Amino acid sequence: MPSHNLEYPKQPYSTVNRYGHRASYSLETIHQIINTCPVLHVSFAAEAPGPGSSSDPDSAFPAILPMIGQMGSFARPSADVGDVLDLYLHGYVSSRMVNRARSAGAESEGEGNDKKKGLPLTVAATHVDGLVLSLTPYSHSYNYRSAVLFGHAEVVTGPAEKLWAMELITNSVVRDRWRHTRVPPTGAEMQSTSILRVAIAGGSAKVQRSPPSDAKADLADAELTARVWTGIVPLHLTAAEPVPIPAGNGGDAKKVPPYLREYVDGLNQSAREMALEVAEGG
Amino acid sequence: MPSHNLEYPKQPYSTVNRYGHRASYSLETIHQIINTCPVLHVSFAAEAPGPGSSSDPDSAFPAILPMIGQMGSFARPSADVGDVLDLYLHGYVSSRMVNRARSAGAESEGEGNDKKKGLPLTVAATHVDGLVLSLTPYSHSYNYRSAVLFGHAEVVTGPAEKLWAMELITNSVVRDRWRHTRVPPTGAEMQSTSILRVAIAGGSAKVQRSPPSDAKADLADAELTARVWTGIVPLHLTAAEPVPIPAGNGGDAKKVPPYLREYVDGLNQSAREMALEVAEGG
Repeated sequence: MPSHNLEYPKQPYSTVNRYGHRASYSLETIHQIINTCPVLHVSFAAEAPGPGSSSDPDSAFPAILPMIGQMGSFARPSADVGDVLDLYLHGYVSSRMVNRARSAGAESEGEGNDKKKGLPLTVAATHVDGLVLSLTPYSHSYNYRSAVLFGHAEVVTGPAEKLWAMELITNSVVRDRWRHTRVPPTGAEMQSTSILRVAIAGGSAKVQRSPPSDAKADLADAELTARVWTGIVPLHLTAAEPVPIPAGNGGDAKKVPPYLREYVDGLNQSAREMALEVAEGG
Repeated sequence: MPSHNLEYPKQPYSTVNRYGHRASYSLETIHQIINTCPVLHVSFAAEAPGPGSSSDPDSAFPAILPMIGQMGSFARPSADVGDVLDLYLHGYVSSRMVNRARSAGAESEGEGNDKKKGLPLTVAATHVDGLVLSLTPYSHSYNYRSAVLFGHAEVVTGPAEKLWAMELITNSVVRDRWRHTRVPPTGAEMQSTSILRVAIAGGSAKVQRSPPSDAKADLADAELTARVWTGIVPLHLTAAEPVPIPAGNGGDAKKVPPYLREYVDGLNQSAREMALEVAEGG
């Protein structure tokens, strides 16, 4: 862990206005939520905003795509999760997205402000750790960890950075998977893979982990507190026993290898522990 | 299930361009993905697009909020999941969002087009059912069910509809929870709760459930197929044993009631079955 405990500056678009005490701008907190989420939701304006945009009301719907992502630094691969990092994204990158990222990059080329190059994206990740069941529907809530990052995306074109990011993302899904597969990718595979690098402009997280909380009048009602079950239902992701592909269909290695066993057991243990710890107010 | 099998019309913003064979526009498919997702990501433009918008580049970042939502019809509460429904959303509704929803509604009041009233929202839900591990990183993928809905949101102001939506959403989190709590909400609780009704303009889903698939050259490589484990790691949500609040803190009902036991067992069984069925190619 970095000793400096960096925080993203509060921007108008990133400041949490409600329940500010649950907000965090810590790079480490935000990056960890992003890194441990199996899928991110990536949102961008369907067309560039501003005076030049059309008045087609349908363009008012932002696009949202599910993508896989991981924080990293190509310049300093050993960087800690709490350091200043880029977000690398993999998934279906539409031609519209690529074109917009390229044209946005080109437009701002001369302005000398690297942070504003690329397609503006908002990226969200949410883990639900438990259902908080209280005496009244009004006071029901979730325990959760939620993060949002704002940044500018560009398509990674350098082969070395692209290869590095592909390994980063593959190993983020199953630790150590990359070197246990057929690598390096062929030229055609490299060509057909799109990786986006998002330079982060700001971000925030919101973390709630608290027991049920009710109003005094309800708590004083003995009939009510005896009748209504209150507490927390912990929720967590589980990896079931890996299912090998039938023999002869391209997978003859049936025995789950140690790195995969470790991944499955590790995920199950850490996800469960997190949910139970939150439920027990740890 | 409805026999008519309705589909959302393909709109420019909702058409799935890549892997079109995995796309679905079926109301039933889309609504079920939305209804079973514990958290939705709701995105909207940070400011209204079009000629009147500012050129502040930060306004280019869409806002994303995690919210809880459920499809429903206030006019016809017995409607089926595959019928034409509204999306009801609960969560932190910022004053910016409320103001934009109100002003968008007012602006279009005279146009006689109900569908275009309200704040344009895009709503995404994604379930990851499994990791698909193949011979090469390039052919790795997820099995998943993902849905996006586009629509116009208005704040629900009628008390009857609001109360109905609060019950709908509470029972979507834990079936039958509402009547086992202290209801109805007080006037102050009603006042402090914001519910959005989203009139749906379009939507799409993408569903992938397939075994690992590799190129012929790799499949023909006996060393490779013997060395690399290929198959599926099923992933699913799990509800752990409910943790009651310590006695004297507002919950004296310790024994998990039947409706909650059913919810926990039902979730665990259906989520696990879904993940395993997908992994086994069912």
